[in-house]
Amino acid sequence: MDSDGSKRATFETTDRTTVRRLPKRAAYDRQTVYSILDEALICHVGFVVEGKPVVIPTIHARLNDLLYVHGSQASRMLRALREGADVCVTVTLFDGLVIARSAFHHSMNYRSVVVYGVATEVSDRGEKLTALETIVEHVVPGRSADARGPSEAELRGTIVLSLPLEEVSAKIRTGGPIDDEADYSLPIWAGELPFSLRPAVPIADSRLSPEIALPDYVARYRR
Amino acid sequence: MDSDGSKRATFETTDRTTVRRLPKRAAYDRQTVYSILDEALICHVGFVVEGKPVVIPTIHARLNDLLYVHGSQASRMLRALREGADVCVTVTLFDGLVIARSAFHHSMNYRSVVVYGVATEVSDRGEKLTALETIVEHVVPGRSADARGPSEAELRGTIVLSLPLEEVSAKIRTGGPIDDEADYSLPIWAGELPFSLRPAVPIADSRLSPEIALPDYVARYRR
Repeated sequence: MDSDGSKRATFETTDRTTVRRLPKRAAYDRQTVYSILDEALICHVGFVVEGKPVVIPTIHARLNDLLYVHGSQASRMLRALREGADVCVTVTLFDGLVIARSAFHHSMNYRSVVVYGVATEVSDRGEKLTALETIVEHVVPGRSADARGPSEAELRGTIVLSLPLEEVSAKIRTGGPIDDEADYSLPIWAGELPFSLRPAVPIADSRLSPEIALPDYVARYRR
Repeated sequence: MDSDGSKRATFETTDRTTVRRLPKRAAYDRQTVYSILDEALICHVGFVVEGKPVVIPTIHARLNDLLYVHGSQASRMLRALREGADVCVTVTLFDGLVIARSAFHHSMNYRSVVVYGVATEVSDRGEKLTALETIVEHVVPGRSADARGPSEAELRGTIVLSLPLEEVSAKIRTGGPIDDEADYSLPIWAGELPFSLRPAVPIADSRLSPEIALPDYVARYRR
């Protein structure tokens, strides 16, 4: 926040969020960070157990400048993190292969975000409900109005953690290969192969009553 | 290895590779682990810097029971890991959304692998060349025969690390939602929305000579 309370358009960098390798690929502006976090369906959560790293994939969702993750009371990861452990949450969107003339310059197009911080458990009932609804809406926009909401027992059985978006960086590569000048004359194809994550045809649950129609938000799902 | 030198079909579990949360989703057999590592285009590498976790996405490739990652001599990650640091490499394939009648039972279908161990730098020139070719072939099968191979300067500028596949587990979820029995009578659609990562039309490099044809391994690329 600035002294007048307004949010800056850009995250302030710290030593560990300053991208040193290929810094021209770095981004620190909120809109870029938000768009990557909001498009990604999963994140990878890193934490330290007995001095050693552990990386677990999970679902996340962003609300303003908070990132939420959730899971069962039985989850070792969430039980470790609820005590206020250091965490690194990384989100990566794969956009395509970059096929260069030299093996050395092969690359990938991607958009990634790295968030460092300390997660804290959401104990307030209202915030916990909001966080869980945010997660459902993040994954399937429109779904929370239809699905049966959490019971008290389900709420108690779920841990929600929040991580403030403060120490954050993004890294992005786009475009075609960058070959060594001498290699452009080689008779070798070069270019990009873009990729996207696409939904197939929805599969109704085997116990679904046939008169229940497929909702538009599933039929028209796009990421 | 067994005492007769043959490889077991299954990775032996350790405390940290034993999946405790939903253990029926766990897999420890080599073929399952190999297939997930081989299909995934990126991994997330976790390591510890000054007691805190760092998670970075990168490209990997498997050769037998070794996992290779590579990067520039300028990479902070690779410079930290070449000294023999503990590492956790996690690979996740997202297969689809699981849309349950209750918010609580929403889930995802996925296949993930977690590898724990200590990475070591590949210093042998022959193994380094093999590892780099394995990485190119992992990403674009068929490409290494066409691309210009690494020069001595490129080889020197690249760090390759290998991580033995010893302490490994996989976790897989497939199929539709599992709702609470009472919720099956609710008038709410439920099912799966499968996803796949699909290539779009290749984009030739802007400096590509028009007489150079698109290779089959790009035109027919499937993951």
